[in-house]
Amino acid sequence: MKVQAFAATRSGSKLKPFEYELGPLKPDEVDIDIEYCGICHSDLHMLKNEWGITKYPFVPGHEIVGKISAVGKMVTHLKKGQRVGVGWRSRSCQTCEQCLSGYHNRCLIGEDVIVGRHGGFGNKVRCQALWAFPLPDNLDIKTAGPLFCGGITVFNPIVQNGIKATDHVAVVGIGGLGHMALLFLNAWGCEVTAFSTNPKKEQEARNFGAHHFINSNNVDNLNSLANKFKMILVTANVELNWDAYINTLAPGGKLHIVGAVPQVKATMSPLISHERSIGASPTGGPAVILSMLEFCTRHQIGPLVEEYPLSKVNEALEHLDAGKARYRIVLRNDLA
Amino acid sequence: MKVQAFAATRSGSKLKPFEYELGPLKPDEVDIDIEYCGICHSDLHMLKNEWGITKYPFVPGHEIVGKISAVGKMVTHLKKGQRVGVGWRSRSCQTCEQCLSGYHNRCLIGEDVIVGRHGGFGNKVRCQALWAFPLPDNLDIKTAGPLFCGGITVFNPIVQNGIKATDHVAVVGIGGLGHMALLFLNAWGCEVTAFSTNPKKEQEARNFGAHHFINSNNVDNLNSLANKFKMILVTANVELNWDAYINTLAPGGKLHIVGAVPQVKATMSPLISHERSIGASPTGGPAVILSMLEFCTRHQIGPLVEEYPLSKVNEALEHLDAGKARYRIVLRNDLA
Repeated sequence: MKVQAFAATRSGSKLKPFEYELGPLKPDEVDIDIEYCGICHSDLHMLKNEWGITKYPFVPGHEIVGKISAVGKMVTHLKKGQRVGVGWRSRSCQTCEQCLSGYHNRCLIGEDVIVGRHGGFGNKVRCQALWAFPLPDNLDIKTAGPLFCGGITVFNPIVQNGIKATDHVAVVGIGGLGHMALLFLNAWGCEVTAFSTNPKKEQEARNFGAHHFINSNNVDNLNSLANKFKMILVTANVELNWDAYINTLAPGGKLHIVGAVPQVKATMSPLISHERSIGASPTGGPAVILSMLEFCTRHQIGPLVEEYPLSKVNEALEHLDAGKARYRIVLRNDLA
Repeated sequence: MKVQAFAATRSGSKLKPFEYELGPLKPDEVDIDIEYCGICHSDLHMLKNEWGITKYPFVPGHEIVGKISAVGKMVTHLKKGQRVGVGWRSRSCQTCEQCLSGYHNRCLIGEDVIVGRHGGFGNKVRCQALWAFPLPDNLDIKTAGPLFCGGITVFNPIVQNGIKATDHVAVVGIGGLGHMALLFLNAWGCEVTAFSTNPKKEQEARNFGAHHFINSNNVDNLNSLANKFKMILVTANVELNWDAYINTLAPGGKLHIVGAVPQVKATMSPLISHERSIGASPTGGPAVILSMLEFCTRHQIGPLVEEYPLSKVNEALEHLDAGKARYRIVLRNDLA
C-alpha cells in the first residue's frame, strides 16, 4: 500500500512530496488514515539530525489523530473506522521488565514513530495496536494530536512524582509543552507558578491556569521564592541557572526536566541539605496516556493550536523554528 | 556546669583541652555523659571550615553514645541513666511542615550538634530530647555511635527510595559510609555491587555484603553494567564520571548522593530517555533512625571500627585525614 507523505532528503532540507510502500501488516499492528498531525520540537531536532539518529528520506510527525483503516490478525480491541491517537512510540516489546511493569515508554527495545521509520506528515501511518489509543468521543479531534506527545510528556511527571492538589508547583517555559502543563496542573488543583523569559506571555499563562507569573530574566525574582515548590517542570530546551531554580524547591522537592536540554549542572550542598532531586522522563506509559485522555475529557483540556494544511508544512515548520507558535501547531491532512 | 572537651582554636589547628559552660538546661533538653563518640568526615570539613560555617573554638563530634545525666522539665520519655545516641542534629522546630511530616532532618530552622555550638569530643553534650535516641539493649555501645550520622545517612536513602529486596543496587566508595551501606543493603535482601578505586578492598567489601566488586578506575567495567541498578548510593566525596554511572542505572533508577561532592554534572538525554534521576539527602528523620536501630539489632549490624582514647584525638584525626581509617573511628572518653 502506497503512502503519500512529505519528507526531507537531507539534514534540514525543505520537505517535499514523497511516496513509500508500507508492506504487509503484522498481526499486532494497525494502519491509520491520518486526519491531523501535530508538530513537536523533536520533529525539528530530528529533521536537523541533532540527535545523530535520523535516517533520510525522513518523514516527521508523531502527534497523530486518525481513523483505523486496517487491523492486524491478532488485534481484537480496535476496529476499522475507530478514531485513535498515536504519539512518540510505535512499538514496545511487551515482555521486558519495563513493559511488564506498565512502563512501556521506557522499553529499551521499542520503536519510535519517526526513528528509523516514517511518521505522520502524510496520509497514513502504521503502529503496534497497543500504541493507537481510542479517542474519547468528547475530545476535539483537531486539538487532540499534541496530547499524545507533548501532552503526555508533561502529564506523566505529575503522576510519577505523586503530585497532590495541595502542592505548590511551577512550570519553566510557557510554550508548546509548558502551556499544556499549566492547564493540567491547574485542573489537578495545585497552586501553579509560571516562569518565563517573555513577560508578554503573562496574561496567556494566567489564562492557561497559572496563579503566579514570574519573569525569570531577573534572578532576584527566583531568589525571593526559596523553598517553595514540590515540583518544577522544566519544559524549556536551553541551559538554565540550575542552582537558582533548585533553591526554589521545597525540602524533598524535585526539578523534573522534559525539555531537550543538553546538560544539567548543580551544586551539591543545596541538594543534600534539603533532600532535593533532579529527574527527567520520556512521554508516558499506555495506562497513563489513557488516564490523561479521560482527565482531558472530564476537564475539557486541550492545547491552544494553530492549524496549517499539511500541504503548507514547510511554512508551519518555519513558524515553529522561529519561536512564533502560539502554542502548538497541527497539520490538517489536505492530501487528495 | 563545666564541660571538659577538645577544641580547635582556628581553621585546621590541633585540638587542645578546652573547658566551657553549658548554662541552664531548657525544659525540652537532656544532658548526656559521653561514653563514645565517632569521627565523621564532616568533623574534618568543619574543623577546616571548608563549608564556611565553623565557629572557633570548635569542638567536633556528632556520633555520640552516652548516658542521660539530666532531664529537662518537660521531658517524659527519657530518664536519668538511660543510654542514648545522638547524631548530626540537636534540635528541630517541631512545628514546620517538614517536622510535622516526619522529616525533622529537613527542618530549615533546626540546630546541628557541631554548627554554632559544641559537639561530642568531650565528657558531656546537650540536645533537644527528641534527638537523643534510646539505644536498644543488644546494640554494642562501642560501635553504635557511627550509626547516628554515617549509618542513618546511608540507611535513609534505602527507605526514602522504596528499595525492595528484589532490587539491584550499588554503592560507590567503600569507606566509613560505604561499608555500612553494604551491610544494610545485604541485610535488606538486595543484590549488592561495590564500586571502589582501591582493588585491595575487594575481600573486605565482600565480607560486608557485596555480591560483586567493581574496580571503578576502569570505565570499561562501568560500561559493561548498562541499565542495571535501581539505586546507586554515592558515598565518595570526589567528582565522578557521572555519565558513566548514570548509564548503569536501570530505567527509573536513581543516583543518590550522600558524599560531600562539590557538584554534579550530567548529560540530559540518558536521564530523559530512561527516566533516571539524581538525588541527595541529609541523615534521616527520627522515625527512620528508630527503625534503623531496630533493624541493626535484629540483623546484628554495626560498623567496623578502630578505637582511640579521646585523649589521642589528634592522632585519630590524622589517621582519618590520611584515608587510613578501616572503616570508622570511635573515640572512647578517657577524661578523668
